[in-house]
Amino acid sequence: MGEPLEYPLRVRYGECDAQGVVFNSHYLAYFDISITELWRAAFGSYQSALDRGWDVMVAEANVRYLSPARFDDELRMSIAVGKLGTTSLQTHHRAWRGEELLVEGTIRHVWVDAKTYVKTPIPPPAREALSRWMS
Amino acid sequence: MGEPLEYPLRVRYGECDAQGVVFNSHYLAYFDISITELWRAAFGSYQSALDRGWDVMVAEANVRYLSPARFDDELRMSIAVGKLGTTSLQTHHRAWRGEELLVEGTIRHVWVDAKTYVKTPIPPPAREALSRWMS
Amino acid sequence: MGEPLEYPLRVRYGECDAQGVVFNSHYLAYFDISITELWRAAFGSYQSALDRGWDVMVAEANVRYLSPARFDDELRMSIAVGKLGTTSLQTHHRAWRGEELLVEGTIRHVWVDAKTYVKTPIPPPAREALSRWMS
Amino acid sequence: MGEPLEYPLRVRYGECDAQGVVFNSHYLAYFDISITELWRAAFGSYQSALDRGWDVMVAEANVRYLSPARFDDELRMSIAVGKLGTTSLQTHHRAWRGEELLVEGTIRHVWVDAKTYVKTPIPPPAREALSRWMS
Repeated sequence: MGEPLEYPLRVRYGECDAQGVVFNSHYLAYFDISITELWRAAFGSYQSALDRGWDVMVAEANVRYLSPARFDDELRMSIAVGKLGTTSLQTHHRAWRGEELLVEGTIRHVWVDAKTYVKTPIPPPAREALSRWMS
Repeated sequence: MGEPLEYPLRVRYGECDAQGVVFNSHYLAYFDISITELWRAAFGSYQSALDRGWDVMVAEANVRYLSPARFDDELRMSIAVGKLGTTSLQTHHRAWRGEELLVEGTIRHVWVDAKTYVKTPIPPPAREALSRWMS
Repeated sequence: MGEPLEYPLRVRYGECDAQGVVFNSHYLAYFDISITELWRAAFGSYQSALDRGWDVMVAEANVRYLSPARFDDELRMSIAVGKLGTTSLQTHHRAWRGEELLVEGTIRHVWVDAKTYVKTPIPPPAREALSRWMS
Repeated sequence: MGEPLEYPLRVRYGECDAQGVVFNSHYLAYFDISITELWRAAFGSYQSALDRGWDVMVAEANVRYLSPARFDDELRMSIAVGKLGTTSLQTHHRAWRGEELLVEGTIRHVWVDAKTYVKTPIPPPAREALSRWMS
């Protein structure tokens, strides 16, 4: 069982709406950055994965908004691997401000061939690398 | 039982990513436009609702990505009201290209006071207006 | 001498920032939509142009912000062709709310081969089609 | 004469378009982040400036695109103060990848009262703080 991968993320002015808080869709953009950071930790970079013919497409996303993040907040983002199915990868996402959990969510990606975008089983070396962040 | 509210939405170039398809977070931005259009149909406009002290905050979002939308596609967006709880409003969202369903999702909003953002029961006239699009 | 091409554009909630007005970078996204609409009027669609091997890349952008657009404003966007150089295309952009000019700008694109992205002279049929919107 | 303020900025997947490069409007969003970082260095934070009644609105933006930035590039962003007029602030912006200059631009802000958004002279302590990054 591994620890989640964490990294800091500063909220940008243009990401906040007229209510003064991060607009709801941007959290999915944040979760996508977490995937990039997980890929960096697991495979070197997203490009290295592509070079091996590995890509993913989003199949499902779920987000729960507990408390709003605001402009210039430095969030602590976390990502952990939930399930590693034959062709699908579930990741758990959290955004914290200090010890306060603001937003959490789950993304399900489908593994695809990087050229054809056809669904394909997650290759064993990818599976092994990702399992380090299994929750 | 009402029909969903529908309107056309053209995919913008800047909403498409390096895979040539609409980036996943933008569908939540699209669903938010649907809320604006529902407000227009039900209350005159979002501003009219604000003027009556009515506002909402997103509490939960779920999206299923079935097939990608591409640049310049003219989507048919639909929104219907699912549940109208005491303080919460659930809406069902769909994005179609012709007869093909591309993406569907559910958003749960919490009704709040437009000034204090404190959770408050959905007022009867709002409830009645929204029930026209109940699915 | 032609008239500018015009079309309506509704401001989205998520495009407005904590000051309650359209965030400055989004006007360049709006101007890009104008290019898509010009392409539709001149060439059928952006895709038709691509199919003929025609693409463009942005080389320079200038924007003057006169008055802020707000959420749910229905803007009148206009685009006209300024200069048609050997390889470069200058377009003039305006965003109006009713008779009030809110934002204006100029974009310079470079014509490129749609596959190699190498700079290439604007082909005569493209030049002729675009000249209908010359200001 | 001061040095520009510099900081690193990683390109996000969702900021890249179907050509695989950063979509042109996002550079203005990047330049806005530079303003936030300049405010942090000069005034503690954007919020500290607001607390003193200081705010700015964008009046003009110019961008030159020399070479495209790509997904996952770590850019070196720089910002320097150009002119400090009575009510207007001009900043110079650059985005580098290593020693390669990719994009440069100029933004002109107008100083406004943080509550009324009425144009107001730049207060002497703000002027003095900003002059450290004068180019």
